[in-house]
Amino acid sequence: MGGLNNMDINKLIKQISPVPKNHIEAIQNQFNNLTKPLGSLGILEKFVIKLGCIQNTCSPKIQKKRVYVFAADHGIAEENVSAYPASVTPQMVLNFLNNGAAINVLTKHFNSEITVVDVGVNFDFERDSKLINKKIAKGTKNFLREPAMSKEEALKSLEIGFECAKQAYEDKIDIIVAGEMGIANTSSSSAITSLICNLSVSEVTGRGTGISDNTLKNKINIIKEAIQKRAPNINNPLDILMKVGGFEIGAIAGLALGCAYYKIALVTDGFISTTGIALANKFCPYVKQYIFPSHSSVEQGHISLLKTLDMKPIFDFEMRLGEGTGGIFTLPVLESAIDLFNDMSTFEKANVDNKLY
Amino acid sequence: MGGLNNMDINKLIKQISPVPKNHIEAIQNQFNNLTKPLGSLGILEKFVIKLGCIQNTCSPKIQKKRVYVFAADHGIAEENVSAYPASVTPQMVLNFLNNGAAINVLTKHFNSEITVVDVGVNFDFERDSKLINKKIAKGTKNFLREPAMSKEEALKSLEIGFECAKQAYEDKIDIIVAGEMGIANTSSSSAITSLICNLSVSEVTGRGTGISDNTLKNKINIIKEAIQKRAPNINNPLDILMKVGGFEIGAIAGLALGCAYYKIALVTDGFISTTGIALANKFCPYVKQYIFPSHSSVEQGHISLLKTLDMKPIFDFEMRLGEGTGGIFTLPVLESAIDLFNDMSTFEKANVDNKLY
Repeated sequence: MGGLNNMDINKLIKQISPVPKNHIEAIQNQFNNLTKPLGSLGILEKFVIKLGCIQNTCSPKIQKKRVYVFAADHGIAEENVSAYPASVTPQMVLNFLNNGAAINVLTKHFNSEITVVDVGVNFDFERDSKLINKKIAKGTKNFLREPAMSKEEALKSLEIGFECAKQAYEDKIDIIVAGEMGIANTSSSSAITSLICNLSVSEVTGRGTGISDNTLKNKINIIKEAIQKRAPNINNPLDILMKVGGFEIGAIAGLALGCAYYKIALVTDGFISTTGIALANKFCPYVKQYIFPSHSSVEQGHISLLKTLDMKPIFDFEMRLGEGTGGIFTLPVLESAIDLFNDMSTFEKANVDNKLY
Repeated sequence: MGGLNNMDINKLIKQISPVPKNHIEAIQNQFNNLTKPLGSLGILEKFVIKLGCIQNTCSPKIQKKRVYVFAADHGIAEENVSAYPASVTPQMVLNFLNNGAAINVLTKHFNSEITVVDVGVNFDFERDSKLINKKIAKGTKNFLREPAMSKEEALKSLEIGFECAKQAYEDKIDIIVAGEMGIANTSSSSAITSLICNLSVSEVTGRGTGISDNTLKNKINIIKEAIQKRAPNINNPLDILMKVGGFEIGAIAGLALGCAYYKIALVTDGFISTTGIALANKFCPYVKQYIFPSHSSVEQGHISLLKTLDMKPIFDFEMRLGEGTGGIFTLPVLESAIDLFNDMSTFEKANVDNKLY
């Protein structure tokens, strides 16, 4: 993987372009001729139009799908902010490799590939063809005490995600879901969300894996104090990532930038995934044109992030699991929307009156 | 089909029992042992528990799925309450038979059967093995001028739906989606919803197929006047059905009663579908235990009906099409939830720490 330095990233970002708009009318016209009340497929119509714009075609398609699961550990875990010990991060990575986790069951069910990327887990994994080893360090630093990562590490996390988009492009992947795993990563997400949405820490901090009232209170105080001490520049997404971020969050931001660069549709998952994507959108405001929303998770900061991306979630399953498990449900919706677009009869063919009163 | 008289229906309804609760703990315990934070699959866990209760097993399954589409015409259509002429009802039935409608594409995509039932379309269809002919009359009467149907016709509509549940039971169907088609049927649904939710007509009346401001105003006035003139007994669901109902709404109510009787899971679709199901729940308050919610449609009365059933929609695709097109999206959610339940690793098997801090 070629090293990208700060200048390279800025150069790549500058090459990201907005999606073309020249297919919108043709796709909408085709929908308007199908045997249904005008616009009655709602978001399904809008999604096909959006995918057509991303893929620069009036015949958008989804043939190959991939979920990326970025895993990393967090120094902040030592501050008692999670319901589970940090040892769960590598254990869950092994579970992914053995097909035992929720996202494994769902990728199988929805006929998607899954790629697990170690960007910073505190464990030495044996070689496994299913695990992409991109370990930056054995976890971030405790951002209550010091910056979560160096500038170099932050750039590296972006680069890893960007390279994943490049690999997906080469593998002819049509759509990606951005998943993650990392004990304590909601603390990092809450800090970032508070900064990029300009909301108080308590407004955007939830129970993560399911912490108690006392632990939640502690978590909020820790994040508040950390933000005060680290004082990230809210106009500089790289500075935010360095000071209070996580390696998997940086990788997701890089993935989103790469998807916009290579013109691949990307689906949000939950709070952490959407944090990475919202951060990418701070680097380049065209990013959101390549993003599809999925569910609204139980984490209260999630909806604020979606708002900054001008997005409404389409599901609410009251989930809070990550890994890509919420995002993947957008795939059958989009696939069936494409089928509707391609396979429904027109008014003319079906001899159905389409003249409105 | 054996004729059910009023006494028979009351007898059948009295035989509907609540779902057993003895599998709840076993299913929840199994979920709690899977490698994920406690309860983090949210509604997916609750749905598997609900399906287990309905199917009276700790190993619920979905193998065979069916969408029923009940079609009927409405006398009220002559009052200029829809954006489309009544001729569209039979045209769309033919479109269903030729696999050209949205629900055809979706049933194919999600591997479900589809059964179209003519309960009152104003058209003489040629014989077609794919169309179940249960025509009660060629549309209801205009309920602004007279009751929509006779008591006998109302009972017949319930009976037809109930018999469809019986047929599904004999065909070993595991889950049903309640779909419909009928120009002007949102007017009937709004009237019924106003009565059973005790809300004003304007609060529960929307644009249906997409009517203009003026037509909406007219629609609200027509429904208000009709309710005043017909004066249905709000405590008597049969009287409501007779006075301002529709044949497909009665059939869906009968289907819901039959599903509760035969212990088959039933999924709501949009406003009209949920009207029929809410009406069934007025006949027997155990009905809702057999019902799964799906989307929230654009029709504003829909959410009020879901509330009377103690249900929250799990999707919002801004759809307003009917036919079962929103409901069917609950099937992959439920199927994948069952896969998660059966196929995820346990903490023990995967060597993941599950002892909370």
